[in-house]
Amino acid sequence: MSQLLGDDFFMKAAIHQAKLALENDEVPIGAVIVVNSQIIAKAHNQTELLNDVTAHAEMLAITSAANFIGSKYLNDCSLYITLEPCAMCAGALAWSQIGRIVYGASDNKGGISKFGRSILHPKTKVEFGVLQEECQLLLKQFFKNKR
Amino acid sequence: MSQLLGDDFFMKAAIHQAKLALENDEVPIGAVIVVNSQIIAKAHNQTELLNDVTAHAEMLAITSAANFIGSKYLNDCSLYITLEPCAMCAGALAWSQIGRIVYGASDNKGGISKFGRSILHPKTKVEFGVLQEECQLLLKQFFKNKR
Repeated sequence: MSQLLGDDFFMKAAIHQAKLALENDEVPIGAVIVVNSQIIAKAHNQTELLNDVTAHAEMLAITSAANFIGSKYLNDCSLYITLEPCAMCAGALAWSQIGRIVYGASDNKGGISKFGRSILHPKTKVEFGVLQEECQLLLKQFFKNKR
Repeated sequence: MSQLLGDDFFMKAAIHQAKLALENDEVPIGAVIVVNSQIIAKAHNQTELLNDVTAHAEMLAITSAANFIGSKYLNDCSLYITLEPCAMCAGALAWSQIGRIVYGASDNKGGISKFGRSILHPKTKVEFGVLQEECQLLLKQFFKNKR
């Protein structure tokens, strides 16, 4: 059971969210936020539906998680996100003081690694590469079909 | 008339928004978004009211402006904001491809200048220092009263 509730388990939940985005012709990126092995927020990219560049999966998940726990600080929470967060989402995650970020696929062009570790809160732990190929494949297929 | 509708005029409208934030015990930061000399969105920091770290004045203004013009891209728009945008807001402004950013007070600790020009869209023009003292004074007074 503990294995089921490891990083793979929660990244699979984030991938499920990414697939929901794909079904709605949104860039397939999904997120879940977890506290004490419980998913308290799940979201996928909705920039097209909401006609709003701020509607990234992470942003919606942060708002939803804060709502759930009744605090805007997410120190005890982990975010699972299928793609490395962009500057906007990294900045939001910094303000939330989130405990841990786990991302699947890397984004060398626009991800946090471009801006350096200081874009995040100093106490936030970062891990990556969890189910990386599956996360990446969804994005590759989406953009291939768009060409 | 043209003088009235210059940068000072719109920054004053942003300062008015910041004062509304102050009245609600929010960090006094305000924003307006302008297209063709018309204010199409105005917002102030609402992180306390909404219990949401993403509710910065710029973020709310971007969402509101996109709603107003029916496009998530704000290429022809100018944002007036009383404080230099943070990484989150800079990232959102980059996604929106906003035409111009004018900010009042500088934020050397957490503002865009910390992360470099590449955090913004390459076509976005940036100006600063408009009514700087007035913008800064609001913030100084707020934090002084908090101590």
